[in-house]
Amino acid sequence: MASSLFFCRIPLQSNSNSNIFYSNSNSNSSYYYSKPIHVRCSAAVHSSKTVSVAEPEPVFNSVKAFAPATVANLGPGFDFLGCAVDGVGDFVTLRVDPDVHPGEIFISDISGAGEKLTKNPLWNCAGIAALSVMKMLHVRSVGLCLSLEKGLPLGSGLGSSAASAAAAAVAVNELFGGKLSVSELVTAGLDSESKVSGYHADNVAPAIMGGFVLIRSYDPLELIPLKFPHEKDLFFVLVNPEFEAPTKEMRAALPPEITMSHHVWNCSQAGALVASVLQGDLMGLGKALSSDKIVEPIRAPLIPGMEAVKAAALEAGAFGCTISGAGPTAVAVTDDEERGREIGERMVEAFFKAGDLKALAMVKSLDRVGARLVHSTPR
Amino acid sequence: MASSLFFCRIPLQSNSNSNIFYSNSNSNSSYYYSKPIHVRCSAAVHSSKTVSVAEPEPVFNSVKAFAPATVANLGPGFDFLGCAVDGVGDFVTLRVDPDVHPGEIFISDISGAGEKLTKNPLWNCAGIAALSVMKMLHVRSVGLCLSLEKGLPLGSGLGSSAASAAAAAVAVNELFGGKLSVSELVTAGLDSESKVSGYHADNVAPAIMGGFVLIRSYDPLELIPLKFPHEKDLFFVLVNPEFEAPTKEMRAALPPEITMSHHVWNCSQAGALVASVLQGDLMGLGKALSSDKIVEPIRAPLIPGMEAVKAAALEAGAFGCTISGAGPTAVAVTDDEERGREIGERMVEAFFKAGDLKALAMVKSLDRVGARLVHSTPR
Repeated sequence: MASSLFFCRIPLQSNSNSNIFYSNSNSNSSYYYSKPIHVRCSAAVHSSKTVSVAEPEPVFNSVKAFAPATVANLGPGFDFLGCAVDGVGDFVTLRVDPDVHPGEIFISDISGAGEKLTKNPLWNCAGIAALSVMKMLHVRSVGLCLSLEKGLPLGSGLGSSAASAAAAAVAVNELFGGKLSVSELVTAGLDSESKVSGYHADNVAPAIMGGFVLIRSYDPLELIPLKFPHEKDLFFVLVNPEFEAPTKEMRAALPPEITMSHHVWNCSQAGALVASVLQGDLMGLGKALSSDKIVEPIRAPLIPGMEAVKAAALEAGAFGCTISGAGPTAVAVTDDEERGREIGERMVEAFFKAGDLKALAMVKSLDRVGARLVHSTPR
Repeated sequence: MASSLFFCRIPLQSNSNSNIFYSNSNSNSSYYYSKPIHVRCSAAVHSSKTVSVAEPEPVFNSVKAFAPATVANLGPGFDFLGCAVDGVGDFVTLRVDPDVHPGEIFISDISGAGEKLTKNPLWNCAGIAALSVMKMLHVRSVGLCLSLEKGLPLGSGLGSSAASAAAAAVAVNELFGGKLSVSELVTAGLDSESKVSGYHADNVAPAIMGGFVLIRSYDPLELIPLKFPHEKDLFFVLVNPEFEAPTKEMRAALPPEITMSHHVWNCSQAGALVASVLQGDLMGLGKALSSDKIVEPIRAPLIPGMEAVKAAALEAGAFGCTISGAGPTAVAVTDDEERGREIGERMVEAFFKAGDLKALAMVKSLDRVGARLVHSTPR
């Protein structure tokens, strides 16, 4: 099938005019897209041959992918920085299903903490991302059946929707031979995020790429992976209280304007945070994490006990502490797992004492891999 | 003389309670200071001996120090990031002079581009920094004669006052055996800057330390050196027009408030700038340099031709371009010295055509050393 045709991939991250700005009809957002048209690849093909984009065939009968939880914002990294945490996240199983209409997705079941989620693939975060990847790959002849295992609670501030989208995007891509680039997968995930929780890549980019990721721009999409040194340990203490953070309030509470002095302060702390990650300076990282003067001071009072939880974490020896994403989960950092458990206990106590909230703590290391295939069945 | 006494240096950058916050009576600013009092050094001395701070003796008869020009702000690094440029800067020569009142400074002459500067050491940038270091060292018995060679034009946006202060601070310190730490020298330089051009360390810190420096906080003073990889070349094209940038207007024009979207944008670009420096990514560095949406769009129109100069630099192949400090100098970056000269020519032309201003271009590499002793005469 069409295998003799040229496959002409237009790089997503270049600034060249060959990038076609494509408005996605399924949402209000727009993204860069390798438009499925006949193009002349003048760089690759010196003669003036007309080339077409091929529809790939599945290389597996079924695949299972995992994508990790993520911590976005990280204090002064508000809206442009996030990182992935290992050992907790969502699984997506995908299989070729002749009973599903070609080019479409059927969501057969959702298990775990996702009972509130719709199975309509046009509105389900995994479904949207999967369909987006199918479109990018020009899959028109194969229908897919998707099963979602939610390992992450919804609305916790741990990138639940992004983990589903990332796992689904990677699953579809792997099923068809892994033809898409990382930035294309993030674009698909962003397509899902924009419909479900807002046009932000600070969860879905690290969920796909692992580690710390800086979102430099959206138009074009530019992502900077920030490599935390391999030889250093970094643990996140994640404390999730039984409290529904009012997401709309959380965003509405943010000031439309910021003073110049707060801007300069947060900007310098963001720079310090980036430097600390790259230099593996955990004390510096923690200090930067704790330093936000713009978002955290407004959001923390909306989460009962948060200020006391942060104080308890620091007192117990955490390098730093802030709100994970838009909350209500609190995140603290340390270089020692056992110390992490002690910090978690103190934070849980503080949520109970100061906020009258039950909470669960977990200690997780930095995920350096991102979304990945965990199982596959050959055709 | 007092050489048998313990010398107890209290670390300036620690957060411990042993740091004494000391208000400097010569200015409105304040700084951390190893207070000249009798203290018990419980960490260093296990017995409860009482120790005192000694007055050092000069180890040279005269010294000559150099401090480089600096580029502050660097686009989104407004007010917290700066770097040093090699081969252009100020020289300070200092000699022990029995005719000068002990504990005081006499400025004998100022040559080069400093004809407008006062010789009153209490108001001269080199004088203030020198006196500040003398105070820190508790020099009470020796008078010093200072000579200043200005290699930098005043008010050019290249850290002219900071270069004088840095050279003077390092000269005094070296004359007395180099007892002060880098952060103490920056504190002395900051003392001068606060009186002469504003309470900002983004010129004086890189002038003293070399390379790129991020000012994380002032209270306490925390500086993060950002190491640009040694194996990479980085050249600054500095184009200084014959125009007096109205410093007060330059600062007054800045908005007191910033929109959240501009804040997030600049913050992410600042993070990208830091990452680019540490990773030696010159294209990324240039792009970040050019990306400021807050300060440059307001200041550039106040410098005739600046927008055309930036466009000309980018068109000629510069990785990025912005205003150096508060201007009027424009700074562009490249990895090739010859290309840098071409870029400089195009920028000079643009200043002339679009701004009706004569301008001079120079191409300088990154200074990785900072202020240093260049000559000394033993006692």
